[in-house]
Amino acid sequence: MDTETLHFHALLSQVATATEEALEALLPPASSPLTEAMRYATLSGGKRMRAFFVIETCNMFHVPPTQAVRAAAAVECLHAYSLIHDDLPAMDDDDLRRGKPTVHRKWDDATAILAGDALQTIAFEILAAPKTAPDPAVRLKLITRLAEAAGARGMVGGQMLDILAETRRTPLSLEEITDLQALKTGALISWSVEAGGILGKSNTDALAVYAEAVGLAFQIQDDILDVTGTAETTGKATGKDAEAGKATFVSLLGLDAARKKAQDLVSEACDALAPYGSAASGLRRAAQYIVAREN
Amino acid sequence: MDTETLHFHALLSQVATATEEALEALLPPASSPLTEAMRYATLSGGKRMRAFFVIETCNMFHVPPTQAVRAAAAVECLHAYSLIHDDLPAMDDDDLRRGKPTVHRKWDDATAILAGDALQTIAFEILAAPKTAPDPAVRLKLITRLAEAAGARGMVGGQMLDILAETRRTPLSLEEITDLQALKTGALISWSVEAGGILGKSNTDALAVYAEAVGLAFQIQDDILDVTGTAETTGKATGKDAEAGKATFVSLLGLDAARKKAQDLVSEACDALAPYGSAASGLRRAAQYIVAREN
Repeated sequence: MDTETLHFHALLSQVATATEEALEALLPPASSPLTEAMRYATLSGGKRMRAFFVIETCNMFHVPPTQAVRAAAAVECLHAYSLIHDDLPAMDDDDLRRGKPTVHRKWDDATAILAGDALQTIAFEILAAPKTAPDPAVRLKLITRLAEAAGARGMVGGQMLDILAETRRTPLSLEEITDLQALKTGALISWSVEAGGILGKSNTDALAVYAEAVGLAFQIQDDILDVTGTAETTGKATGKDAEAGKATFVSLLGLDAARKKAQDLVSEACDALAPYGSAASGLRRAAQYIVAREN
Repeated sequence: MDTETLHFHALLSQVATATEEALEALLPPASSPLTEAMRYATLSGGKRMRAFFVIETCNMFHVPPTQAVRAAAAVECLHAYSLIHDDLPAMDDDDLRRGKPTVHRKWDDATAILAGDALQTIAFEILAAPKTAPDPAVRLKLITRLAEAAGARGMVGGQMLDILAETRRTPLSLEEITDLQALKTGALISWSVEAGGILGKSNTDALAVYAEAVGLAFQIQDDILDVTGTAETTGKATGKDAEAGKATFVSLLGLDAARKKAQDLVSEACDALAPYGSAASGLRRAAQYIVAREN
């Protein structure tokens, strides 16, 4: 690894630590299977890319770290809820997540449904509190945007399209997969990238362009890792998409073209950051990391 | 039925119509199984007691009806989400709701999980919009209170306790059931009753006392109807609690004492409304209705 990459990994690890400390304090104490499951799903590692985007863009706009880390914790709760529900037998039926049993495997389906439900709730609760931003209008904007990104016209809408695609006779086209992923994973990544701009009361147009490209690159790399990775390196079952005959960026483009497409998106993302100059170097490294990562 | 009761039924029906009209407009159009299921679960009738409490307390505090109906729609979305998830095979496994197939029976478990998820999201989205209240602080208070009422320390926490009770060797005590119901159904009823006070920027202490008593009375009546009602009158399967050997207010107190307890709670609830005089007559009738209803 070169020095820049090492530096980025250290930064990512710092963000993860700060976010987990915030989550430790914000989540209810582990006093029942419900709260144990909520903490298990939220505090069991992960790359914390969403938290990184929040905290990095907050830095760019000089948002106090105490505020940034709360917005980061909120989006990680929302993300954790979506993973718990996606892993359920009625959905993707996954036994492993980050190398550990999924919530419904460690407890049961009912606990997993409820823990996901309560994690969605607490995401909004965290954002609504004055400590997240002194200006009520800023908190309301974060809440409104998160609801748009998470709901039927965002993440959950994308997850529904993904499930419907499984029962279709014809595999999805490249355009359809792109649209699906923009909702399923892109919307929450966009929220995370724009959160710093919202908290810093700044225009978020350039960040939105970066976020869209990076979100798609992220998904392409996930599809690549499903083919090239192992359960050991990725911490989850691999080869599932091919086995299910599911259309992915790799099945549609081939491995090489998928890699090139991801790299092109990274360039596009970095170009959008030009107005910010060196203040956006963390975001540029993040884009590079996303297509180089092995898990 | 006497004139007062008839008048109350007419009022309840008015509120239901106004709330459903608002929901029609606020919910995304039925363009996929997800949004069809969201609309099906939210627009398929029900007593709309929560909406009634919101709109009635808003009237008491002179909140514009256009605001009141949005808060009412929000809590009905939250309530509909909880019913969809509660009805799932992993939870209560119910086939019927309001005399119609439950969402997972009409579609499937995945669609039901996602429709519930998106209905929770939209509840917060509705509350966060300026049309719900011009003052951002009021919207944030509604959101914060709803999150507290719905999450791990509220409704979902109560649902978890309910599930855990099923696997216990000893049935729940009266105190335990009371605590469980205060979370599972009471918290959202309390939010609905207090919403008018929050929107009207008024003290909600007396409303909170009323809400707690009425919420418990509501649950006792539900337990009574599970014993005395039929699927035809209640629109859902009855006798399930007794069949499951589940402790209820009726199994612990007996039918007569349960009825008396519910009636005492109604008196207690109405006493708490004394400071509001005749302005609270709608809430008093609602309390009477709750223990007299047959579905």
